[in-house]
Amino acid sequence: MAQPRPRAAVRVGVTINGRLNYDIRLSRLRARLAAIGQNGLDALVVTNLNNIRYLTGFAGSAGALAVSALDCTLLIDGRYEEVVRAGQVAGAIAPVDMVRVKKYDTAIIEHINARQWKTVGFEADHTPVSQHRRWCDGVAGVDLTPTADLVESARLVKDAQEIEILKDAGRRLSDVARRIGEWVAVGRSELEIAGEVDRAIRQAGFEKTAFDTIVAAGPNTAYPHARPTDRRVAKGDLVLLDFGGVLEGYCVDLTRMAGAGRVSAEAHSLYRAVRDAQDAAIAAVTPGALTTAVDESARQVLVQQQLGSAFVHGTGHGLGLDVHEAPRVGPGDPSEATRLVSGMVVTIEPGAYVVGLGGVRLEDDVLVTDQGREVLTNAPRDLVTV
Amino acid sequence: MAQPRPRAAVRVGVTINGRLNYDIRLSRLRARLAAIGQNGLDALVVTNLNNIRYLTGFAGSAGALAVSALDCTLLIDGRYEEVVRAGQVAGAIAPVDMVRVKKYDTAIIEHINARQWKTVGFEADHTPVSQHRRWCDGVAGVDLTPTADLVESARLVKDAQEIEILKDAGRRLSDVARRIGEWVAVGRSELEIAGEVDRAIRQAGFEKTAFDTIVAAGPNTAYPHARPTDRRVAKGDLVLLDFGGVLEGYCVDLTRMAGAGRVSAEAHSLYRAVRDAQDAAIAAVTPGALTTAVDESARQVLVQQQLGSAFVHGTGHGLGLDVHEAPRVGPGDPSEATRLVSGMVVTIEPGAYVVGLGGVRLEDDVLVTDQGREVLTNAPRDLVTV
Repeated sequence: MAQPRPRAAVRVGVTINGRLNYDIRLSRLRARLAAIGQNGLDALVVTNLNNIRYLTGFAGSAGALAVSALDCTLLIDGRYEEVVRAGQVAGAIAPVDMVRVKKYDTAIIEHINARQWKTVGFEADHTPVSQHRRWCDGVAGVDLTPTADLVESARLVKDAQEIEILKDAGRRLSDVARRIGEWVAVGRSELEIAGEVDRAIRQAGFEKTAFDTIVAAGPNTAYPHARPTDRRVAKGDLVLLDFGGVLEGYCVDLTRMAGAGRVSAEAHSLYRAVRDAQDAAIAAVTPGALTTAVDESARQVLVQQQLGSAFVHGTGHGLGLDVHEAPRVGPGDPSEATRLVSGMVVTIEPGAYVVGLGGVRLEDDVLVTDQGREVLTNAPRDLVTV
Repeated sequence: MAQPRPRAAVRVGVTINGRLNYDIRLSRLRARLAAIGQNGLDALVVTNLNNIRYLTGFAGSAGALAVSALDCTLLIDGRYEEVVRAGQVAGAIAPVDMVRVKKYDTAIIEHINARQWKTVGFEADHTPVSQHRRWCDGVAGVDLTPTADLVESARLVKDAQEIEILKDAGRRLSDVARRIGEWVAVGRSELEIAGEVDRAIRQAGFEKTAFDTIVAAGPNTAYPHARPTDRRVAKGDLVLLDFGGVLEGYCVDLTRMAGAGRVSAEAHSLYRAVRDAQDAAIAAVTPGALTTAVDESARQVLVQQQLGSAFVHGTGHGLGLDVHEAPRVGPGDPSEATRLVSGMVVTIEPGAYVVGLGGVRLEDDVLVTDQGREVLTNAPRDLVTV
């Protein structure tokens, strides 16, 4: 393996890895808990792992967090005890209390009962019905209250340190995108090309890919979420590459198109139409704009080109600790849309897919700023001809 | 990228990709639905994506399946319409009805109401409380019945075609493991080594890694679920490598240990103890054995070496479309344990972790056979000295 690009220096002080941010995030959550219902909630049980990570810095594959006005306890199993201890010493994990558990549901029930909380919120989008029933059976006399988006609503607007990481990640992913011409070639399979992309993502300093890399060639480009296959790139093929990386937990995501030699005039006009649609949507990203209006900007361009029905997905999605998070940038009722504010980060990725001809998608990551927008992924969007 | 090892030929006929298996799986599920309660359930809404894949071959990132005695309908969004159509033509996706949806919950509610079903099961482990509430609001007069493991209980015992794939995958992963000595070296970072492992997994013909590859060196081995870091291997380090691959959707998983030059006598005796524990647990895998007894076989060995408290996790887990699925091979109440039967596939992966000294884990994938067991991952388990 070639020498990897240096990884981001660990940010210290008032940083994502420092305690200050966790303190602010916990305080905001507590304020929200206090504002629910008549008397507020006594506590919240957080089970979504990225919400736990956002609040504490703990990034394991299992865990639960119980937050009340007075305390904050991380419940983890034996695999993570030393990880948390070392992370707290290093300042990378918030100095919350830690309880080592054997069975999560049993431990959560015991914790609620021991604290004598009476109203306990839970994350209704992240708690399966079966788990909820076990909790109900175990906590007699406690009012378990469904909540939605208590942590996600804070995650929606990135703070200065999150933006710093996302900008860094956008630059690194753009560096990867600039190398597409090295990898796409007539005779190479989609899987081989995807392997090169994944390797470059690691070399660029990312912890891992943000999702399974998509490389689709020729007719396979007509499937928006194609998986790479053994198909080898043939002369005249359009090739779609959609890939992302995770840096310090934060996801970025980008799509570019290549052409193997001369692509047909129809394919080229499909590419132009999608590029125009993307330009229009990026220009529509501005504080105060509704997500539905941003989507409509892209959609109108494609409708005018008789490609309305070929645009089978939304224009974009939020980016952060999840590669798909709020806000959704799609069509729909404006009353259910999100109004963009400075600090949100979304993908803008219109596409058009025509069976027989192929598909085109272009995707960039856009930060909403006070003045309008900043595109975080600045690799050229030209059709890469190989 | 080097020339990849050829991928598995697509299996046709009575295969995982053929219709016959899907027919059998659907028939079995229908029989189970008919046996629930007094009069059986009219239908089941399947929302777990790997359960949908098991029943139909459809492997997208979103979807729902409605199964009744008379029909079977796959609800998918626009991104997957052409994928399903082409998959059905190729015989890789079962010939179920397909409905293209805009919003999943709305479409599921409309589907239930249109069919006039009265008792509809849902997967309580895979349906969040919030989604369940939306369904309840939409289907007045319908009895929504929580179910558990209706599909998973079938997935627990692999059929001949699944076993064929898992054996193939085990051989390929063993080939990767035999190359550990090429990658681990004094001065190389955990991240660099993990990059090599991931590349080799792709080259071996896997679609992707089964989880984020773990490479831990020196003190980091004391964390059972360490993430690779910039730490460079130093002389005398133990190095733990835990990685897996996905072949035709099925996951395999393996852990091996390396030593950079001479490791300390204490580290070596930790390695010996874990190896003895693994031997004991593998020998205990046999039809009729309880999973708790298999776990106890490994645990006893470590307890005898005063390492009982250093073994902070269970002995193993089932493998299949999920990298962690039933049965759990861990300690606990025998009345809640699973009795092994021929066709189950589990990992056997005891470990011992001592802060200051380091940690050791060895992991293999074991098929329960009529006669006893077959280890599917046959790479040498010796401490790879580099």
